[in-house]
Amino acid sequence: MTLTNTRFQDVREWDNAHFIHPWEGMPFLGENERTFVEGGEGIYVTTEAGDRLIDGPAGMWCVQVGYGNTEIAEAMAHQAREMAYFSPFNNANSAPARLAHEIAQRTSGDLNQVFFTTGGSTAVDSAVRFIKFRNNIMDRPEKKIVISRQKAYHGSTYLAASLSGKERDKGWLDQATHLTHFLPNVNPCQRAEGQSIEAFLDEKVADLESAILEIGSDKVAAFIAEPILCSGGVIVPPKGYHKRCLEVCHKHDVLYISDEVVTGFGRLGHWFASEDVFDIVPDIITCAKGMTSGYVPMGACIISDRLVADISGDKAKGATFSNGFTYSGHPVSAAAALKNMEIFERDGILEHVREITPVFESRLKALSDLPLVGDARGQGLLGCVDCAVDAKADDLEQDKNIGAMIDAHCQAQGLILRPIINMCVFSPPLIISETQIHDMYDIIDKSIRMTTDDLVRQGVKVA
Amino acid sequence: MTLTNTRFQDVREWDNAHFIHPWEGMPFLGENERTFVEGGEGIYVTTEAGDRLIDGPAGMWCVQVGYGNTEIAEAMAHQAREMAYFSPFNNANSAPARLAHEIAQRTSGDLNQVFFTTGGSTAVDSAVRFIKFRNNIMDRPEKKIVISRQKAYHGSTYLAASLSGKERDKGWLDQATHLTHFLPNVNPCQRAEGQSIEAFLDEKVADLESAILEIGSDKVAAFIAEPILCSGGVIVPPKGYHKRCLEVCHKHDVLYISDEVVTGFGRLGHWFASEDVFDIVPDIITCAKGMTSGYVPMGACIISDRLVADISGDKAKGATFSNGFTYSGHPVSAAAALKNMEIFERDGILEHVREITPVFESRLKALSDLPLVGDARGQGLLGCVDCAVDAKADDLEQDKNIGAMIDAHCQAQGLILRPIINMCVFSPPLIISETQIHDMYDIIDKSIRMTTDDLVRQGVKVA
Repeated sequence: MTLTNTRFQDVREWDNAHFIHPWEGMPFLGENERTFVEGGEGIYVTTEAGDRLIDGPAGMWCVQVGYGNTEIAEAMAHQAREMAYFSPFNNANSAPARLAHEIAQRTSGDLNQVFFTTGGSTAVDSAVRFIKFRNNIMDRPEKKIVISRQKAYHGSTYLAASLSGKERDKGWLDQATHLTHFLPNVNPCQRAEGQSIEAFLDEKVADLESAILEIGSDKVAAFIAEPILCSGGVIVPPKGYHKRCLEVCHKHDVLYISDEVVTGFGRLGHWFASEDVFDIVPDIITCAKGMTSGYVPMGACIISDRLVADISGDKAKGATFSNGFTYSGHPVSAAAALKNMEIFERDGILEHVREITPVFESRLKALSDLPLVGDARGQGLLGCVDCAVDAKADDLEQDKNIGAMIDAHCQAQGLILRPIINMCVFSPPLIISETQIHDMYDIIDKSIRMTTDDLVRQGVKVA
Repeated sequence: MTLTNTRFQDVREWDNAHFIHPWEGMPFLGENERTFVEGGEGIYVTTEAGDRLIDGPAGMWCVQVGYGNTEIAEAMAHQAREMAYFSPFNNANSAPARLAHEIAQRTSGDLNQVFFTTGGSTAVDSAVRFIKFRNNIMDRPEKKIVISRQKAYHGSTYLAASLSGKERDKGWLDQATHLTHFLPNVNPCQRAEGQSIEAFLDEKVADLESAILEIGSDKVAAFIAEPILCSGGVIVPPKGYHKRCLEVCHKHDVLYISDEVVTGFGRLGHWFASEDVFDIVPDIITCAKGMTSGYVPMGACIISDRLVADISGDKAKGATFSNGFTYSGHPVSAAAALKNMEIFERDGILEHVREITPVFESRLKALSDLPLVGDARGQGLLGCVDCAVDAKADDLEQDKNIGAMIDAHCQAQGLILRPIINMCVFSPPLIISETQIHDMYDIIDKSIRMTTDDLVRQGVKVA
């Protein structure tokens, strides 16, 4: 089996013939012309055709330290040579033990108990399973409903997907609807005409409290929320939203899961955004992606000591938390995560993000002036341009494919974005320089103008 | 953040204070004295204390090519340096495309569509989600029940765990009981006194057909089965069982998922055991573990072309399979898997397993003569000694801890096993030599005798 010197056309055929991609569009299965990215360095990826592009989404919101990092590559290889695998069911290994310790040092409050998983989806799945396990031990087996929000994304196991509120994902896949409840959209841009931000915030917090009261606090186990709803379109709730939601939760004995799969590990300039940016100490944090800069699969849910204390030792009733994975705390993943954290600290990556965020945000804001852009929003190194050719930007049925049009123009000029219907989101590697931020926005700006021209030529009215 | 030169006692404290392990026993949380395995070479691991032990379970049924494989380590590092991550949602990369192709070449029938995941649990979760997705598109939304079996293990997401039939795992965690149905134990050792194997087989096949008829074939979507029930205690169903079950399934338009997370990638001397060992071509195969020899997380479900053809192209109704992971088809995992497969072929590992299996099996069978051993069973390089101090070996309540006692004696003599209540299971790295197989069994034999002595000294009657 030698795989070198293969014709690229073969590889494309293999991809189409044998690799079902995530979110595969079934009508076009086997007929895709996907861009093959084969190399990378810093913030750039190189396609099979030899094009060098700025990677706007950092892979999938994850390649924090950029591509081609030889230190992480060597840390993984070193760990694989020394001790490639141990069973976390029966034994221990110093790499994940060290990692759990280092993570606990960087979380706020008593978030000190790390349960390792293989990514964000399994982190959310395990977090929710843990909460229900805990309520069973605590003699409240009815307290199981988890409240989520429209536009939320929490992953893709059956349970995690059931907590996701993106309409487009719900069409053909089953959901555990009896275990969840969804609150309305928290996007301030879509508040009623004339409603103040303050009134909108009051309404959103009241949505949560009403839901808890309506369902019954004896039945609601938890509220799960991304600090910023990322793949739902980088929706930033009004200032103070999370703090007030946490207060409502704790008032009614409902746990708060902060899903930091995207915001954790530096995206907003801090290890975790929950306390440092949003001023809350949640009961559980889920994380993944930036944890290893995406170099190898890993995720975790980080649980409060207090939650664990309620059901361990004398209070355990003999229970085993029969949940976990062959690859929970995988030593190679742990070695990559440790090296990643070491690089963050040595190179001052969190400080760098905080320093360049004003440039990123001001260039982002400036895009709002373009006629096609309904809203340009974001925070930290997270951005989204939300385009609208009429007033109903949220009407998914109209799906204008504007995101893909902008992305195509960007790619031709050296930048990949992540198109989502009428939006484009971007979250570049955290090592991006100020000059590179300008390069990126120059291309975005130009591509939106080119897309506008395309639409006008097609007879679409751009307000 | 420098982590070198740490005192080992600190690492143990970190492990206890911050790392919740899979299947954590909550009464003892934070007070474990787990063995730290820190190094490995070939079939041996080295503990923090410097002990060199044969790794009986190959980590967790996964380290097929053994520890310290520098080729896999270098393949991972190479891929990480070249292209550490790409988003499978939006782009493609040659490593997973090649891997999908290589896997499809080695599966039987038309099992050619590979959906990559992060491990076995997510492979099963995705397989079941796919089947339900398919039935929704095919206008039979009621066809959703999945039939599984007592003692089965299919993973640890909420959905995968709901398909697991190990009693001990069900105590405190919620299950989607309305989506599943369980068939009785298929262990021939536990058949009624005087019942022939043939009659037992008829009964077990009839169990499946009766369940389908009782629930209604319009409501049963699939049957899921490990070829050998592995963590349930290496239960080998009677010869012909799988073939007849597949016939029953197809007669009633029920899909057959063969869960080869343990048996795939060489454990029984073949890439996959479904056809080569058990003479069936299932509709879906799930795999993980041996796929990368455990060096990095990865899993997959491999779907029949026919299943996909029913819901793609013109028949797709515009559907998107909105399922998948940031780390689906991770290039570093794919590079490790490709190198692993290359080593399998170059070094003739499958042939080697077939050659030494008779030695492994004859030494295994000989253990049956020991008074403490109720049954010594297995197939390929999978073994289990099932011990009994009275007739009710299956009565989990009695939990004699015999497995842990044997394992402790083994560890003192240079061998790790995997204790499961009154059983010990083992599945060494596939590169194990004939001499090493004898070393392993010599220690097991002696340790069972020592455990028998311990029990007798405690006043337990060993039949």
